[in-house]
Amino acid sequence: MAPTIRQVMDLILAEIPGAPFKQTVDTIKSGNPDQPVKGIVTTMFATDAVIDQAIREGANFIIAHEPTFYNHLDETEWLADDKVYRYKKEKLEAHGIVVWRFHDYWHSHRPDGISMGVLTSLGWEKYYDASTPGFVVVPSTSLGAIIDLAKKKMDIEKVKMIGDLSQSCSRIAISPGAGGGKSQIGSINRWKPDVFICGEVNEWETAEYIRDARYQGEKTALVVLGHSVSEEPGMQWLVTWLQPKLPGVKMTHVPSGDAFKTI
Amino acid sequence: MAPTIRQVMDLILAEIPGAPFKQTVDTIKSGNPDQPVKGIVTTMFATDAVIDQAIREGANFIIAHEPTFYNHLDETEWLADDKVYRYKKEKLEAHGIVVWRFHDYWHSHRPDGISMGVLTSLGWEKYYDASTPGFVVVPSTSLGAIIDLAKKKMDIEKVKMIGDLSQSCSRIAISPGAGGGKSQIGSINRWKPDVFICGEVNEWETAEYIRDARYQGEKTALVVLGHSVSEEPGMQWLVTWLQPKLPGVKMTHVPSGDAFKTI
Repeated sequence: MAPTIRQVMDLILAEIPGAPFKQTVDTIKSGNPDQPVKGIVTTMFATDAVIDQAIREGANFIIAHEPTFYNHLDETEWLADDKVYRYKKEKLEAHGIVVWRFHDYWHSHRPDGISMGVLTSLGWEKYYDASTPGFVVVPSTSLGAIIDLAKKKMDIEKVKMIGDLSQSCSRIAISPGAGGGKSQIGSINRWKPDVFICGEVNEWETAEYIRDARYQGEKTALVVLGHSVSEEPGMQWLVTWLQPKLPGVKMTHVPSGDAFKTI
Repeated sequence: MAPTIRQVMDLILAEIPGAPFKQTVDTIKSGNPDQPVKGIVTTMFATDAVIDQAIREGANFIIAHEPTFYNHLDETEWLADDKVYRYKKEKLEAHGIVVWRFHDYWHSHRPDGISMGVLTSLGWEKYYDASTPGFVVVPSTSLGAIIDLAKKKMDIEKVKMIGDLSQSCSRIAISPGAGGGKSQIGSINRWKPDVFICGEVNEWETAEYIRDARYQGEKTALVVLGHSVSEEPGMQWLVTWLQPKLPGVKMTHVPSGDAFKTI
């Protein structure tokens, strides 16, 4: 007898320090978790395309890192009459699919599940140091080579960057996703990295800080990978982590991928 | 006798409906406004490079659309020991330069000064309709041609987009800067445009909404120009608007430009 989706969630939460949290965005966005799990799909965004793929695979449980309904708290009152929202919501309901956001918990796992997935995808997991989360020292290489590595291993078309492609980088601060300016600038000040790699910035915050810092003679470069692609390996790594705990349950990672083209 | 900087500010505010506002981010970020104005520089961001250019031009008044100190409210307590902040702050003080943010007021001008600058730079000012701010109908052309026009006229290297370059566009919703997901999605719903053009998005908001909408069969495309470059023509247009009111005062627009390269 397959476990219920709620039992799968409880099994996961048992591994997260301090879980369950009183305040978290990691709520159920759709569906009834008291049904037996038929299959699990992990992804960054439960897009309509990812939902259709889950349906094709016979999965009824989508674990998504980011919001389903276009805002951080997945508030839906403002979308009550919105066609795009209703189409997605009704499809999820018609197919009895549970969507659970797994953001705060996965970042609270030790090691941070997203960071470990990203380091693993880059071949940098051997440089992970639990005493300096978010910071690794790698063999010296050029900024251009680091960008090429990230593009190739993380399936990224283009990145936005501030820096000199030929500058040497060894001290890497890496913060997938969109941590916000104060957190990102705090990390830059803490580690004084050769490059700060992140998923997304508010352009009036970290980007302008780095622009001024470099103009003043500081050397830290900035690489912005794109939010979705910057964390996708962490949701791939969730399958690697979870499958041994649930050997009888089919689970796959379906990348939501980059929404954008750059031209 | 030259007017003081405060007198220049009062002259500007006299043209803004409802000014002065009780709550606004448009505060003085540096310097003493009770000095005679020696010259004015308008820009998007008062970067260190822009400040140096103002010094070279002998200007003592920088009117900047966006924050000076890397956060929306220009809070500086968290930066008190930050080298990059201190360098910039001390340079402004040493040269007696006043920096004034001119964001809420310029958007509140009728017509919105930023939007009018952008429309003018694109050659679309003739399509401006005061009854539909943020929305214009232009002769039908391809999405690719619109992107080419924006790149050429607004000096943009690369844009991020979601859509089909060959799709025909006539109904254009245009929202320079970073209005936030609810505002941007609201505009998309209000105008049902062929393309929504903006400066910056939170990737989990408008971009995912457009991705789902297009998957469902809707046609609205998204073009993200970059925040700084998307509003720069509006700060250029400020010179056009202000110079006739102060014929004896030297004023120039110094573009802060795009902080990023895309590779």
